[in-house]
Amino acid sequence: MHPPRRRLLLLLLSLGLLPAVTWALLAPPRFPGPDARPRAGAGNAVGGYEFETRYFRQRLDHFSFPGVGDEEFFQQRYLVGRAGGWAGPGGPIFFYCGNEGDIAWFAANSGLVWEAAPRFAALVVFAEANHLTNLHHLPLSLPLTHCCSALQHRYYGESMPFGSKDEAYNNSRSLAHLTAEQALADYAVLLTDLKRNLSAEASPVVLFGGSYGGMLAAWMRLKYPHISVGALASSAPILQFEDIVPRAIFYDLVSNDFKRESLGCFQTIKDSWKELDEQGNAQDGLLKLSKTFHLCQTLKSSEALSDWLSSAYSYLAMVDYPMSSDFLMPLPANPIKEVCRNIDKQPEGTSTLERIYAGVNVYYNYTGTVDCFDLDDDPHGMGGWDWQACTEMVMPMTSSEDLSMFPRYEFDYGLYADNCVKSFGVRPRPRWITTEFGGHNISSVLEKFGSNIIFFNGLLDPWSGGGVLKNISSSVVAIVAPLGAHHIDLRPATKEDPDWLVSLRESELEIISVWLSDHYGAGGVLFQNAATNDQAAS
Amino acid sequence: MHPPRRRLLLLLLSLGLLPAVTWALLAPPRFPGPDARPRAGAGNAVGGYEFETRYFRQRLDHFSFPGVGDEEFFQQRYLVGRAGGWAGPGGPIFFYCGNEGDIAWFAANSGLVWEAAPRFAALVVFAEANHLTNLHHLPLSLPLTHCCSALQHRYYGESMPFGSKDEAYNNSRSLAHLTAEQALADYAVLLTDLKRNLSAEASPVVLFGGSYGGMLAAWMRLKYPHISVGALASSAPILQFEDIVPRAIFYDLVSNDFKRESLGCFQTIKDSWKELDEQGNAQDGLLKLSKTFHLCQTLKSSEALSDWLSSAYSYLAMVDYPMSSDFLMPLPANPIKEVCRNIDKQPEGTSTLERIYAGVNVYYNYTGTVDCFDLDDDPHGMGGWDWQACTEMVMPMTSSEDLSMFPRYEFDYGLYADNCVKSFGVRPRPRWITTEFGGHNISSVLEKFGSNIIFFNGLLDPWSGGGVLKNISSSVVAIVAPLGAHHIDLRPATKEDPDWLVSLRESELEIISVWLSDHYGAGGVLFQNAATNDQAAS
Repeated sequence: MHPPRRRLLLLLLSLGLLPAVTWALLAPPRFPGPDARPRAGAGNAVGGYEFETRYFRQRLDHFSFPGVGDEEFFQQRYLVGRAGGWAGPGGPIFFYCGNEGDIAWFAANSGLVWEAAPRFAALVVFAEANHLTNLHHLPLSLPLTHCCSALQHRYYGESMPFGSKDEAYNNSRSLAHLTAEQALADYAVLLTDLKRNLSAEASPVVLFGGSYGGMLAAWMRLKYPHISVGALASSAPILQFEDIVPRAIFYDLVSNDFKRESLGCFQTIKDSWKELDEQGNAQDGLLKLSKTFHLCQTLKSSEALSDWLSSAYSYLAMVDYPMSSDFLMPLPANPIKEVCRNIDKQPEGTSTLERIYAGVNVYYNYTGTVDCFDLDDDPHGMGGWDWQACTEMVMPMTSSEDLSMFPRYEFDYGLYADNCVKSFGVRPRPRWITTEFGGHNISSVLEKFGSNIIFFNGLLDPWSGGGVLKNISSSVVAIVAPLGAHHIDLRPATKEDPDWLVSLRESELEIISVWLSDHYGAGGVLFQNAATNDQAAS
Repeated sequence: MHPPRRRLLLLLLSLGLLPAVTWALLAPPRFPGPDARPRAGAGNAVGGYEFETRYFRQRLDHFSFPGVGDEEFFQQRYLVGRAGGWAGPGGPIFFYCGNEGDIAWFAANSGLVWEAAPRFAALVVFAEANHLTNLHHLPLSLPLTHCCSALQHRYYGESMPFGSKDEAYNNSRSLAHLTAEQALADYAVLLTDLKRNLSAEASPVVLFGGSYGGMLAAWMRLKYPHISVGALASSAPILQFEDIVPRAIFYDLVSNDFKRESLGCFQTIKDSWKELDEQGNAQDGLLKLSKTFHLCQTLKSSEALSDWLSSAYSYLAMVDYPMSSDFLMPLPANPIKEVCRNIDKQPEGTSTLERIYAGVNVYYNYTGTVDCFDLDDDPHGMGGWDWQACTEMVMPMTSSEDLSMFPRYEFDYGLYADNCVKSFGVRPRPRWITTEFGGHNISSVLEKFGSNIIFFNGLLDPWSGGGVLKNISSSVVAIVAPLGAHHIDLRPATKEDPDWLVSLRESELEIISVWLSDHYGAGGVLFQNAATNDQAAS
């Protein structure tokens, strides 16, 4: 009934789900990864922003001291904006904490950083995470060379075999240092070195990050207060661990995004899983399903289709922007409204599954250029995030059916862990993130500790369920956009931007302006004009 | 001229020193280590304080995820005070961040923690650092078993060979994770687990630590604010890195401790190095020196003797307490005064070196039971601290001759690093500590970040030169005792304690009382009485 699947998270989820119901699989909620869109080239400009690409020799493991012959390094890629507008040494540095993917892609989708930089005469730096994508770049260390090229094939390429035991061992060894803590240390070392090389030791660093990058930005401010003056952590679900927030929140929020557009749409989707499952089990059902959904190949089980649909809904909720966008997929403004319109507007007598197809077509084929869909060509292929989810980033999620349009799903940690051992040869540490970074009682902890963090969340974004939504202190603040989606604040400004978005970006920049004014003090020269202007404006 | 020496720091220092002058070696300034005194037994009481000894299975490397078969663990020893006086779950936990040595020894010398606990109905926990002493205890992981017993011999025992290349490789591999960051993570994991097991998740933890343990306590509060409500960091030289404080400060402060007792004493010591060196180079000079200083064996060079003397002066400055003590050595009250009295009071015509012997005899033989001194039996043998000094704890120190009674000594980082490679097969990272923990511009960084840290320093303590001596904010405060020595505040109360010591301990406890009151809030029950009493008292 369950043929070997090549994708880890299906394995992880299917075993948890199927004993309870025979309905479809939940799509793995995952941050947008490097394969979500064809990558930006390795050129010197992306999204109209010009930069230089540089590499920094970074050590693989900051927290141990192997013998001289055993030290391992990799080349960390980072982008430095053309420095024409920088105030020079002492002037601000805007530093984007790179995510689980190609940094150029995040640079193109984080226009705020580039667009705000001239106002503060800031130097822009985007750094790639200590990540598999980096390991692909010019590994210096011989022992890594083999495994890295293997890694690139294994986790980012088209073929996703679990490989031989020897390969798996090699991989868990080389993947071992793919952690958030190592990434933060990368940033600390890179920034310290960069500032020294620029004679800019006195320069204040402002951290930016969205999604996982936002988590890194917040944690970086907390763990390395001497490295930055503040952090804008956008859509950073730092509370999505253990039982800090309700485990059903993610799928409830996705569901609510559909319900608010149309109750009928919500109900059609909610009803569809059973129909899909029944049709999958019927005579010639898989062939029929494949035709209904215009698949290039006949399904071998209905779960792959369910997963493909669930993915679309989750990602739609993340990118439910009020303007057209091209982040995960080219999409119209308010894409969920569009999906639901397509589901609802079908003539009477249209079957539930035909309606579903009409809706999901908006997500997977808005440009209308796709003849048939290849589910194995899922744009959200296995990435480093799957490894991270199997080590420290254990985010338990369920679907409760009460508020959710998804099938019921219980999180079974035992199965989850077993599958991580099977898939990666690694055992998760589900309590490690809160031990290392906190999260429980975050308000009372940070009320009297820490400063200068903005937590932005858009409430349409299902990741907002794991975000900080209330002000914690006078300088650890939450900015919440009821109509915003996944790190919408960071996106490049467009003419379609609603007033509330323009206004909240301005609020963010005003707060950053205060951090910089505080840093420079009353006698600050470099920043004096900008600060004065801001005070006048506020 | 320089026969192979068995002690790393002589190597490190001699190469730096001898090309410049032919005088004596400087003693390595080192924190008191586990071998400084015969260890307290593994019993259930030490210094009159009763505890249970427990072990916690701790992972060797918190910051990476090796494959299932490659995970390594060790048994971390910790002591838990007899819980009779604890308020129970929700009540305070006083946690001592273990140093570079046997935790029972620090427990016996940190009476403040035990003595203050009943007032707050607190549970006392002393945890040993992630340390070689721990690795010695029941290593669970097979790969470590071999190397650990080797380590024990290599770094704590009497024989200190540099061993074969294979041994060195084994050692640098197994020592690789002996870092402050891993130790802090140990404490975070241990405390989280301990609280869960005691159903005491709501219990506020107050951190204590002296010397290196004080550095760990301060860093723990900064890096893990969710784990504790505050830290008393006693004599924690967190600024003794790079060029944050003057490199000559340590030996200048030692020298000043002697000068303030007697200018003649200071000058005698200052003059002695040249005489010692000249006599060492004279016909039969080493034999004569050995007799003058009552050595058991004839010296092979005068450097060993110089080192032995320098050590005594440095340690005397650290333990220059106004009451008799038995920390590093059994000593009278105001031991430097005693040393100088012995140096000064010798009849006219006594040679400089005979005066020096009379003085140092106070330190090495206060009990009068030693017939002859064995320099190889230096109580401050090689320990884990030497490894740490060769990896992250690079504290550059010099002796300038302007204010110092020690021979001139320049810190040559190149030689230092080369010798670490030779001795341990490891390369230091001299800028890592400030990258990871900060230190530069600490006041401006922490003025707006962090809370609830007390930095205690006694100005007689040469480590106070690397300490935080000024208030940084309303809750990151410095308590300075002009007449105090190394973490005197933590020592058990005695009838000889001067008023200023009684009073500053009370100030520390009042601050801690505020942290606890803040934690419990107005409605707090467990702590209400104590808080009220404190408010009434203050």
